[in-house]
Amino acid sequence: MKILIINSGSSSIKYQLMVMPENEVICSGMIDRIGLETSNVTFKTTENSIEAIVPVATHKEGLQKVAEMLLDTEKGVIKSTSEITAVGHRVVHGGSYFSDTTIISDEVKAKIKELSELAPLHNPAHLVGINVAEEIFSEARQVAVFDTAFHQTIPVEAYKYAIPNYLLTENKVRVYGFHGTSHKYVSEQAINYLENNSRIITIHLGNGCSMAAVKDGKSIDTTMGFSPANGLIMGTRAGDIDQSVIFYLIKNLGYTADEVNAILLKQSGMLGLTGYSDLRDIESEAEKGNKDCQLALLMNAYRIKKFIGSYAAALNGLDAIVFTAGIGENSSYMRKLVCTDLDYFGIEIEDEKNQIRSKEIREISKPDSKTKVLVVPTDEEFEIANQVYQLLVS
Amino acid sequence: MKILIINSGSSSIKYQLMVMPENEVICSGMIDRIGLETSNVTFKTTENSIEAIVPVATHKEGLQKVAEMLLDTEKGVIKSTSEITAVGHRVVHGGSYFSDTTIISDEVKAKIKELSELAPLHNPAHLVGINVAEEIFSEARQVAVFDTAFHQTIPVEAYKYAIPNYLLTENKVRVYGFHGTSHKYVSEQAINYLENNSRIITIHLGNGCSMAAVKDGKSIDTTMGFSPANGLIMGTRAGDIDQSVIFYLIKNLGYTADEVNAILLKQSGMLGLTGYSDLRDIESEAEKGNKDCQLALLMNAYRIKKFIGSYAAALNGLDAIVFTAGIGENSSYMRKLVCTDLDYFGIEIEDEKNQIRSKEIREISKPDSKTKVLVVPTDEEFEIANQVYQLLVS
Repeated sequence: MKILIINSGSSSIKYQLMVMPENEVICSGMIDRIGLETSNVTFKTTENSIEAIVPVATHKEGLQKVAEMLLDTEKGVIKSTSEITAVGHRVVHGGSYFSDTTIISDEVKAKIKELSELAPLHNPAHLVGINVAEEIFSEARQVAVFDTAFHQTIPVEAYKYAIPNYLLTENKVRVYGFHGTSHKYVSEQAINYLENNSRIITIHLGNGCSMAAVKDGKSIDTTMGFSPANGLIMGTRAGDIDQSVIFYLIKNLGYTADEVNAILLKQSGMLGLTGYSDLRDIESEAEKGNKDCQLALLMNAYRIKKFIGSYAAALNGLDAIVFTAGIGENSSYMRKLVCTDLDYFGIEIEDEKNQIRSKEIREISKPDSKTKVLVVPTDEEFEIANQVYQLLVS
Repeated sequence: MKILIINSGSSSIKYQLMVMPENEVICSGMIDRIGLETSNVTFKTTENSIEAIVPVATHKEGLQKVAEMLLDTEKGVIKSTSEITAVGHRVVHGGSYFSDTTIISDEVKAKIKELSELAPLHNPAHLVGINVAEEIFSEARQVAVFDTAFHQTIPVEAYKYAIPNYLLTENKVRVYGFHGTSHKYVSEQAINYLENNSRIITIHLGNGCSMAAVKDGKSIDTTMGFSPANGLIMGTRAGDIDQSVIFYLIKNLGYTADEVNAILLKQSGMLGLTGYSDLRDIESEAEKGNKDCQLALLMNAYRIKKFIGSYAAALNGLDAIVFTAGIGENSSYMRKLVCTDLDYFGIEIEDEKNQIRSKEIREISKPDSKTKVLVVPTDEEFEIANQVYQLLVS
């Protein structure tokens, strides 16, 4: 079964065509800077690749371009759009409505639209992608896979904020959690790999960063809450901060609420602390002795450590911690910082194993470490394709 | 040595006269509702007590009233204000300037004034109290004991927020922590009591609530940050919340920043969740089956549990947890909720011991519990008097 996965951002479309259940990637690529004169268009198969800079005015034009490349008589991979059984759409916000992957109907689209208020940068772009995909791939089933779905098992004492009840019941203010597709995928991989696997903490460190406490395969808590703004320190996002700082900046320093929000989302995190937002730069600067970079890495790791402890309490135990995503998979430096001085939790890593780079799941803890430390490469595209496949064959 | 302790709030003065180092309370009392027609004035010795409702227009008038009662020929306890060697002033915010109890000079007053920006409800009231006390008790040394001082040992990776550096260097935005006098007092009591005492978590649950991680007697982290607004769920304060909720309420629901701040400080916490702000009411309602009250208690306890885990990670170990202050000392219900399902941390309490009410330090954990659970009555007045005494005799 051929499944096309689409991730529509505000000005980009990422796509991947897969054969399931074989988990074979036929082609992948992206179109970015939609609306500008110079969109980058890429298309890659095992044999061919296309890279072009052309103007792509709209998402519709972008998806038409994708379809064209898929159908290209020379470099293409399908003869007709009808070969595609399903289109799997990544949707950031499913609110409290969706705890599972869902076939898209008008009703589902209405809910995704309604939830745009909670994810104004993402859900409207997803809707455009869905509408255009319905036209172009009209014979395919359209399926939504929600970033928030995996966290819908979080119990009320963890998802509710201590604010007046009407803000939850009427205004839907609560913890939703994000990166659910990744946390689900890597926790399942870890569960298959491990002997003791009922209490796992997954640590997704990429451009965005979040952690989840996973009990018997279900998310019971996560660091991102109402939005992807809080929790861990990220590239440009502050993560957790005393809310009174916001009122202080507004009242005493004369910022507007929008300016403070922009500072916390775009000028904070590792960028605000170091002037760099790419962790590789920060690590190499830290190694050269840059004090700001050293401190920022330490702060970042310290917060991760505290959430490990916090979730060990929520789980009342700990079988494994799992590092994943760009930084989690590739930064031995950050993994080492996090795992230092956590032997109370049975966490001890072996430096040599920690240095290994691989696309495979691997264990970097000492053989007798009570808590296993795993590196599990995430694969959100596979997870989306697999969820779509499972839904259609079930 | 007679030491008068003064805690000036925005509309109240609490006072206590003590003999040190004997730790003898000569008298205590308060004046509240200053500025209104009906101030409550109380004065209590072992033999006498005065309670009156009279108008007290200003802090100056209030402190003059206190001096009058102290000097009263019939019920009073001193013959002349010159008998008082020192006045110890509780000061909420000492910023990064004061890591110790300090004799008040013009320079110290200037710093307390400067810090009013960070504690607008408290520091100005303290300053009024100091100025009036200097007039009335002109022969006494005036000493400031800061709520923030104990937390000045928190390392930079814990006190710094992941926001642009200039907000720390120029605008002093950082974690300060509060309730320091209480955390210091009860951690010292616990250290004296315990055999293993290098890694302690103190849990102050009163009208305000906070926790501290105490390593070798020093605070290394605490739940309140830049202000006393965040961390644990409190009577009317929300504690930790995703900051994006604030922007959502401003942008989508039309609240002003001031209104949101007021909601989070005055209409949230246990009050927002249950309609009650007094824990005794909430517990009795919960026992009667009130679902909101049951959930609010569970949320409150869940957050405390997570900080226990978090600080066990910061400490890389845990010798004891210490409950203190109104709720911590008196609510066996809350202690039980917190300590349930934390055996991974070696925390196990005995129900019978947990039911004991006493003004003494007591251990409520099982004899073989790896982590001791203590209840330590706090005594901020004694701690202030003792710090003043130690400073003057050193």
